[in-house]
Amino acid sequence: MLSGPSGVGKGTVCSVLRQKMPELIYSVSATTRQPRQGEMDGINYFFKSKEQFKDMIARDALLEYAEYVGNFYGTPRDFVERTLASGKDIILEIEVQGALKVKEKFPEGVFIFLLPPSLDELKQRITGRGTETEDLIANRMTVAAEEMNLIRHYDYAVLNDEIDNACRRIQSIVEAEHCRSERYMSEFAQHMQAASEKA
Amino acid sequence: MLSGPSGVGKGTVCSVLRQKMPELIYSVSATTRQPRQGEMDGINYFFKSKEQFKDMIARDALLEYAEYVGNFYGTPRDFVERTLASGKDIILEIEVQGALKVKEKFPEGVFIFLLPPSLDELKQRITGRGTETEDLIANRMTVAAEEMNLIRHYDYAVLNDEIDNACRRIQSIVEAEHCRSERYMSEFAQHMQAASEKA
Repeated sequence: MLSGPSGVGKGTVCSVLRQKMPELIYSVSATTRQPRQGEMDGINYFFKSKEQFKDMIARDALLEYAEYVGNFYGTPRDFVERTLASGKDIILEIEVQGALKVKEKFPEGVFIFLLPPSLDELKQRITGRGTETEDLIANRMTVAAEEMNLIRHYDYAVLNDEIDNACRRIQSIVEAEHCRSERYMSEFAQHMQAASEKA
Repeated sequence: MLSGPSGVGKGTVCSVLRQKMPELIYSVSATTRQPRQGEMDGINYFFKSKEQFKDMIARDALLEYAEYVGNFYGTPRDFVERTLASGKDIILEIEVQGALKVKEKFPEGVFIFLLPPSLDELKQRITGRGTETEDLIANRMTVAAEEMNLIRHYDYAVLNDEIDNACRRIQSIVEAEHCRSERYMSEFAQHMQAASEKA
């Protein structure tokens, strides 16, 4: 789970990770917000009308959803569950509130909070996008500051000072998590079984 | 803390890590066992007589010590505490029993268990060393099989299938552990403080 305040660069980091870690499956979110330039339906998001989105909620087809600055974002449940069942790693890029809802359902997930180098830098990034009004920027800054307090619910905090550094840290986290001793316990049980059968 | 059953290759992995991660400080253990060919006092171990070792125990100068197949191994306390106080990372290569004693004193440490690809492979490595008698080998295999059960006390299990793979996994664990969110919490408190003072 890759999360973090709006404007921290979750989308950019995910795009670069997609090239560096082709073995990871990327979850595609559904949203009611307008596509930004270059964004494609089914690749960056599933773009939905509010009516379509409400129907997905009613059908319990979303793992989590949240309203954020007037738009809905959600994670289609099907795709995530099928990927996990196949034994592959899946990465979800989700707003802070949505990520915490997924944590209730998958506490064994690995929760990564992407950090801006500073709040000033975050404001510059939100402003620099040039697509939002002044009110919206002020609103986003307030939300972002509140979101920073939620880091205590996350396993990791990854500083997004440079995209390549952030990606290297995330790659290390994925590799380290594969080495968590709990994941080896069942394998060992088999080793021990085989050894005692020989003896 | 890098540990694992005797013969798994802790020493070799540590030697290669020393080159790949010069920023890590390496703890040097004290031991009463005879130096193997090429081992140097103060580099590989502090080689001590049993009398000298018992004196260190009496002076509480060892962070942990254990008797293992007739020899004593221990970790001089001074060096570890001074390194930690300076804010640097220190790596300890310790037998399984000793590592668990250190865990009682430093539960916040990162405990890595180095795994042989299989118990057969482990036996081949212990035999292949060519420096031990048949009885000693049988003894070591029994101890090693028991030690494998202690993995549940460790945070990570790193497969030593190839030295370079094992080293890469350990490097990832060190980088990931630096991203643990708890380590960032105090930094955030400062960010929030600065932000609220501006507002």
